[in-house]
Amino acid sequence: MREIHVIGIGAGDPDQLTLQAVRALRETDVFFVLDKGEAKADLVRLRRDILRTHVPEGTYRVVEARDPERDRSAGGAAYSPAVGDWRSARADIYERLIADELGADQRGAFLVWGDPALYDSTLGILEEVRARGAVEFAYDVIPGISSVSALVARHRTGLNRVARPVQITTGRRLAEGFPDGVDDVVVMLDAHQAFRQYADQDIDIYWGAYIGTPDEILVSGPIAEAAPRIERLRAEARERKGWIMDTYLLRRRPKSQA
Amino acid sequence: MREIHVIGIGAGDPDQLTLQAVRALRETDVFFVLDKGEAKADLVRLRRDILRTHVPEGTYRVVEARDPERDRSAGGAAYSPAVGDWRSARADIYERLIADELGADQRGAFLVWGDPALYDSTLGILEEVRARGAVEFAYDVIPGISSVSALVARHRTGLNRVARPVQITTGRRLAEGFPDGVDDVVVMLDAHQAFRQYADQDIDIYWGAYIGTPDEILVSGPIAEAAPRIERLRAEARERKGWIMDTYLLRRRPKSQA
Ligand SMILES: C[S@@+](CC[C@H](N)C(=O)[O-])C[C@H]1O[C@@H](n2cnc3c(N)ncnc32)[C@H](O)[C@@H]1O
Ligand SMILES: C[S@@+](CC[C@H](N)C(=O)[O-])C[C@H]1O[C@@H](n2cnc3c(N)ncnc32)[C@H](O)[C@@H]1O
Repeated sequence: MREIHVIGIGAGDPDQLTLQAVRALRETDVFFVLDKGEAKADLVRLRRDILRTHVPEGTYRVVEARDPERDRSAGGAAYSPAVGDWRSARADIYERLIADELGADQRGAFLVWGDPALYDSTLGILEEVRARGAVEFAYDVIPGISSVSALVARHRTGLNRVARPVQITTGRRLAEGFPDGVDDVVVMLDAHQAFRQYADQDIDIYWGAYIGTPDEILVSGPIAEAAPRIERLRAEARERKGWIMDTYLLRRRPKSQA
Repeated sequence: MREIHVIGIGAGDPDQLTLQAVRALRETDVFFVLDKGEAKADLVRLRRDILRTHVPEGTYRVVEARDPERDRSAGGAAYSPAVGDWRSARADIYERLIADELGADQRGAFLVWGDPALYDSTLGILEEVRARGAVEFAYDVIPGISSVSALVARHRTGLNRVARPVQITTGRRLAEGFPDGVDDVVVMLDAHQAFRQYADQDIDIYWGAYIGTPDEILVSGPIAEAAPRIERLRAEARERKGWIMDTYLLRRRPKSQA
């Protein structure tokens, strides 16, 4: 039976691989690397560096495939169907990769950025491929350090406050309003800096871009002061590198302190 | 200047240490291990095993201290002050440990279960010790695989669904009601199995106890079917081992599927 590891490789710092991930890398015959086009070539390079560092040369093969373009023009109500199409287009590719490139008793692996549990489609796609039944395989998941964990570690703060909840959400959702019932909110996938609309509130922001990489930028403080700084640094960095990945924690100050 | 690492060591599987954590362990002179009394001796033992496995003998010292008992009888409104007292009692201990046991140019470390960012007081206490100003030190935080990441990896599912938020909360909070605005909720620190009150709803549960250890137990499925099984397995395991650590994800099924 074919076996597949879905390996969380951390969000930028190659030292944030776990020992379990390194072990899984070393027992893998074929790595599947999906190129997202754009300037994400940097991220593909980081995956290749990880392999070079941790796996003896000549013991593995890398198969690259091109991710189908997601229809990003489809906004609003059309969002879900577009995601659906994109997911099944990816399932076609994964199915073909597994069937064609992995011998019947070989081990394959998908290297997933951060933790495979957070805003990543690999697990959903593999389930879809399995459900189709055209190719048989077993798989397991190796958790990774997410950009969320890496962010708060660099800021030396916790995700939650004592006995309080924390929510992890997207920039798109935050733009629709501050989530109900929580004062600590982590935001990912925010291309539009939705935090700006809360700049007049008693909120602290802990922001990070390219966390764990040599380009890392960190800013924290009261949002009114930090927001313009983040905007400027973000624009500069994005201009310089051609792409940006950033994540932030919004922490509402308790009323009594306001 | 004294330096301190706050090291996330994963939630049970010693292979889920990161390379960064192993490196930090190896450059540490003094490890501070706080014993929580109770049956938590098992967890102290796991920390010692990690040291034995990864750090050459004779290169480090372990200093054990007894955690102050938290006043657990104080419920409801009295909860916060009790936590406050307990935190400053711990700050006293940490201050003394750092001042007395760590030479001026030595490196100390606190080994934190899971990820230091989730429901752990170490960072808050160190900040308090620093604010008091009686002992000077620098510190950094090394993120770890949390029990949350470990849970969903074992169940091979994600934390969030596509473009949706996820909330991480406590059993105490879940007992007060299902959080607003989210359909995916991770629950920690639940001594009373608050999930039972949602057993009549269209919710799937992904539950795990002692995740990553040889005693690991996993149950998943529609909550109506899974809840009684979890209750039974949990009671048996708790009886057998004298203590239990469990975490779960509640996932509300979309209305259209109900
Ligand atoms: C598709 S999601 C994948 C998240 C990933 N699975 C994880 O656990 O971090 C991509 C988002 O993750 C965040 N992200 C990933 N790596 C990051 C990094 N090194 N620095 C800052 N944000 C990062 C950004 O919010 C980005 O929009
Ligand atoms: C004080 S909190 C510490 C959490 C830790 N910092 C983390 O990242 O997992 C303790 C709670 O974590 C969860 N937990 C920790 N280790 C676990 C394990 N191995 N299996 C299941 N739950 C665990 C339980 O919900 C427990 O009540």
